[in-house]
Amino acid sequence: MSAADDGTSSGAKIFALAQRIYPICRSITGNGVRQTLREIGAHIPLDVHEVPTGTPVLDWVVPREWNIRDAYIKDPRGRKVVDLNESNLHVMSYSVPVCRTMSLDELKSHIFTLPDQPDLIPYRTSYYQENWAFCMAHRQLEQLRDNTYEVVIDSTLADGHLTYGEYFHLGESDDEVLLSAHVCHPSLANDNCSGLALLAELASRISQMRTRYSYRFLFAPGTIGAITWLARNEHRVSRIKHGLVVSMVGDGAGPTYKKSRQGDAEIDRAMMHTLQHCKLTPTILEFSPYGYDERQYCSPGFNLPVGLFQRSRFGAISQYHTSADDLSFIRPEHLGDSFRIISEVIDLLEGNRSYYNTSPRGEPQLGRRGLYGAIGGDKDAAAANMAMLWILNLSDGHHSLLDIARRADLPFPIILKTAKVLERHELLAPVW
Amino acid sequence: MSAADDGTSSGAKIFALAQRIYPICRSITGNGVRQTLREIGAHIPLDVHEVPTGTPVLDWVVPREWNIRDAYIKDPRGRKVVDLNESNLHVMSYSVPVCRTMSLDELKSHIFTLPDQPDLIPYRTSYYQENWAFCMAHRQLEQLRDNTYEVVIDSTLADGHLTYGEYFHLGESDDEVLLSAHVCHPSLANDNCSGLALLAELASRISQMRTRYSYRFLFAPGTIGAITWLARNEHRVSRIKHGLVVSMVGDGAGPTYKKSRQGDAEIDRAMMHTLQHCKLTPTILEFSPYGYDERQYCSPGFNLPVGLFQRSRFGAISQYHTSADDLSFIRPEHLGDSFRIISEVIDLLEGNRSYYNTSPRGEPQLGRRGLYGAIGGDKDAAAANMAMLWILNLSDGHHSLLDIARRADLPFPIILKTAKVLERHELLAPVW
Amino acid sequence: MSAADDGTSSGAKIFALAQRIYPICRSITGNGVRQTLREIGAHIPLDVHEVPTGTPVLDWVVPREWNIRDAYIKDPRGRKVVDLNESNLHVMSYSVPVCRTMSLDELKSHIFTLPDQPDLIPYRTSYYQENWAFCMAHRQLEQLRDNTYEVVIDSTLADGHLTYGEYFHLGESDDEVLLSAHVCHPSLANDNCSGLALLAELASRISQMRTRYSYRFLFAPGTIGAITWLARNEHRVSRIKHGLVVSMVGDGAGPTYKKSRQGDAEIDRAMMHTLQHCKLTPTILEFSPYGYDERQYCSPGFNLPVGLFQRSRFGAISQYHTSADDLSFIRPEHLGDSFRIISEVIDLLEGNRSYYNTSPRGEPQLGRRGLYGAIGGDKDAAAANMAMLWILNLSDGHHSLLDIARRADLPFPIILKTAKVLERHELLAPVW
Repeated sequence: MSAADDGTSSGAKIFALAQRIYPICRSITGNGVRQTLREIGAHIPLDVHEVPTGTPVLDWVVPREWNIRDAYIKDPRGRKVVDLNESNLHVMSYSVPVCRTMSLDELKSHIFTLPDQPDLIPYRTSYYQENWAFCMAHRQLEQLRDNTYEVVIDSTLADGHLTYGEYFHLGESDDEVLLSAHVCHPSLANDNCSGLALLAELASRISQMRTRYSYRFLFAPGTIGAITWLARNEHRVSRIKHGLVVSMVGDGAGPTYKKSRQGDAEIDRAMMHTLQHCKLTPTILEFSPYGYDERQYCSPGFNLPVGLFQRSRFGAISQYHTSADDLSFIRPEHLGDSFRIISEVIDLLEGNRSYYNTSPRGEPQLGRRGLYGAIGGDKDAAAANMAMLWILNLSDGHHSLLDIARRADLPFPIILKTAKVLERHELLAPVW
Repeated sequence: MSAADDGTSSGAKIFALAQRIYPICRSITGNGVRQTLREIGAHIPLDVHEVPTGTPVLDWVVPREWNIRDAYIKDPRGRKVVDLNESNLHVMSYSVPVCRTMSLDELKSHIFTLPDQPDLIPYRTSYYQENWAFCMAHRQLEQLRDNTYEVVIDSTLADGHLTYGEYFHLGESDDEVLLSAHVCHPSLANDNCSGLALLAELASRISQMRTRYSYRFLFAPGTIGAITWLARNEHRVSRIKHGLVVSMVGDGAGPTYKKSRQGDAEIDRAMMHTLQHCKLTPTILEFSPYGYDERQYCSPGFNLPVGLFQRSRFGAISQYHTSADDLSFIRPEHLGDSFRIISEVIDLLEGNRSYYNTSPRGEPQLGRRGLYGAIGGDKDAAAANMAMLWILNLSDGHHSLLDIARRADLPFPIILKTAKVLERHELLAPVW
Repeated sequence: MSAADDGTSSGAKIFALAQRIYPICRSITGNGVRQTLREIGAHIPLDVHEVPTGTPVLDWVVPREWNIRDAYIKDPRGRKVVDLNESNLHVMSYSVPVCRTMSLDELKSHIFTLPDQPDLIPYRTSYYQENWAFCMAHRQLEQLRDNTYEVVIDSTLADGHLTYGEYFHLGESDDEVLLSAHVCHPSLANDNCSGLALLAELASRISQMRTRYSYRFLFAPGTIGAITWLARNEHRVSRIKHGLVVSMVGDGAGPTYKKSRQGDAEIDRAMMHTLQHCKLTPTILEFSPYGYDERQYCSPGFNLPVGLFQRSRFGAISQYHTSADDLSFIRPEHLGDSFRIISEVIDLLEGNRSYYNTSPRGEPQLGRRGLYGAIGGDKDAAAANMAMLWILNLSDGHHSLLDIARRADLPFPIILKTAKVLERHELLAPVW
């Protein structure tokens, strides 16, 4: 069984899960994360970890847990002009409790808008500095009269836990593939309901497969979640041979792949090769230390071979971190395409091996084995035989099938299938 | 004496020999090969080897020998509608004997044509699967009436020998340069009467020279011939330091050079440098495992530094493997150009050495030795001195004259000539 | 204190000194050199070295000293048609004494002109072959009547000395930066009054600084001066870690940087990076063995990391080695720009170090230390933090700050300043 399909049915399933988790008010801690993990756990048996506030994790400390029940701004006539129930972007994440009346002027110093995108609500956080704020459409702010407002944020910031979920699939080897998505953003559909839902579907698919690698799926809050996981798993991160951070995979742009810090890791070459043959318009970016949790995995003390897969490049689109990143921004067919690409990369990693040509002196006589067009001189026969010739020529123990696919400029699946045929004819022997 | 000339007289001689061997009906074995080697042997003393049918050679076995006396298709009125005597492409090479009458329908399953090139006869072979067929112009096939035809192929396929010819020129060193052309194609002028005739002329030229390298010229059937030679010379192929397969050198395109599998062998760098300065429009191709006998020489168990020199790239022209590859397709001037280029490459290999600058600290005083323009400040004087300055600057024992020519972007002959001057003035000492 | 300023006041000072030394009649030896070094010595305490004629220096010998008092060509009416006092380019450098009358025809064999630039006087020398000649405008030569002329060159060519000046600034380390300008050209403003004056100003600036490196400024005649200096300092040239030859730095073209023979020396990377951010239109050239004294420093036996900095590329401008290279060809603002660039490179070399990230596993919590924008989600906050993130990510002991600046595509001064901040917060520790 292979991870890859044409993506159509997967796209619909991923979209359905993204829809279900979209409304939940998430932050880096709290019940929103727990509820999200329960939804994902309906698809795959998830290990949910709770790490107490105050736990030292690398250079950081697990923060207090934040939960919010209600928040609004009421005008003098008692009308809620801003209401958490309408959009959970309205309150800056980790806002401390407030219950006061204040002038519009004072209130304004606690309001974020996007003057250039006056109809959109921005997304803001203040995890590590106590503060509170509302976020709203600029046009709406402009309509507020100079009055006294009732301002309520019914939140709690107290000792509790940081929560993350993990799904582990045991393969033939202890060597692991890490797939990681951040679970901390509230109602932003592409960033990252799309990534969470895609990995849930992928985990479900892989759970039914016999695999060469073990697979670890991590659903954790951005930055502090990855740091917490790394701190608790420092002794075994060396098992991670390949990894991907997955975010914003539901729009129609890209795809975009940002290489790992290593820059020429197998995951980098696998992703580049797959994207080159994916029939979309991929962009390959060199590693940079800004982005998602690859920042942590690729910090110099770990330097793991983990890249970032996206459709739109983060920060490069107008919907980024605004209320425009809603469910209308992601589409089942795009989610399906993203799923298909990641699945093909996984099939590539699973199948990528080096072989020895067992008959390396001169070409073996392929015709005798029924492997070669029998009528010589045909102009077209050559093309069909190229995969075979490339594999035999480069299988000197130093070239993997991926190396051969890249050199031959042929899709990996063709190379893999042909190698299996040659192996059956004992013309190839795997390098162990 | 140098291998290079301006190519004019060589071009005429090569064309004359190509004309003489063009009509012979060759295959991978048989009397056509022997007759061709006799023609070549009129120019240089050739060692002709006969290897018996059934001899194991690497992964292959020497096949039965094929000979043909006559072949035709007669219509009911006794008229030969296809006749081997008109073109030896009319019969698929290695066709087994036939002597039958049959309907047009049955006959058609044994006829190859080129519907897209309806006036041309294709070239087809079936060496390792018993079969028979005629090849003809598509337009002619369309004119055949639905009738009963007499079909005769008067061939023999029987134990015998595989024949190849070798010419060896002993130089100062046992290190060899291999020059190889396939001798198996029937009346195809460019592919490869041109290559056979060019190598015969080159061998004749080199036989009169004192050379640093030894030179081995191989005239053998494609694939099985190279494999047979490799099998019989496995113990000494390591002597081959540089090599070229030569085919299709008589048309006016290219030149085309396909690199050896090593990709950066001295022959690759020598050929690239020479082509860059050849005043034609060269194309350099990376190695690929499809083509001529470089496939065998560059198989991973040998991995010899052997490239392929051609004018048109094989398969890339409409005349390829058709009756349009006749004597009108090749021209003395193109053969002369090809000869000149290969000769220049040989001169380069012969002359390419590394030297030490004997006065490496600061520039030596060239003026004192009469080597430098005496009037300083002249804007033009510099250019004339550049070869000298480059050689002195880079002769640190780690750069060959070819390295220096490439870095200086100057033709190798200028660098070589200048190095000889500096050596005479004891400013250069060869690295041994 | 830093070497760099905005170049405005430096440009004016450099131009003033160039003006003062422009009229002096210099050659590779003699009083013109001494007078020039006295002018430079008014700005910095110069060590002036006198090396006797006949001293063997590497492959050369210090030549006789040349001085000239007067030279002219008088027509029959006693009118000086050519006069050294009008331009010291009129006499070929190192012309032997002459005092004769001769026909125009005979005289012409001792006259250089530039027919293509008929109003300009060429600059010519004949250091190592005894000869004499005048240089003049071609238009003026054409006006000379067929007459008898009195020809006087009142020069001396006799045992004496070769003179060069050196300024050494001791830094914390014995490792040296070499800055070298040729002092042998007569009244050519750009080539090289500009370079001499710029280095004098730079030496003056550096003399007031505490530096990591020691700095050696060399004002010596071209070729023979550099060779003499190298011969006398062979035992300590290995202290030279970085070097620049400086010439033609007063025109508005370029800047042009020709790499050292090493090609990837720190000076090469420093210069390339600085030029990339300099807001002019730089050209980077690979090393070639023609040019100025980098020819000697980069000869294979020394192979020092010394590049060449210029504005126009030598030989590429119509003013090169003609009377058009006068004071109108150089401008204070261009001298100032050249000064600023070289100073920035020196600041770069001084500041370039490798560091270890002391918290390499995961990102350190920058917010806690007040180093990071506290409000997450802001689209713009990221840009401001990039320098910090790049430094932390790449400070693994293997990347210098210059490596990081190039990778991050940020100007070195930003990287250096940010690294100092991180070092103060003990997030970076220098690699010793």
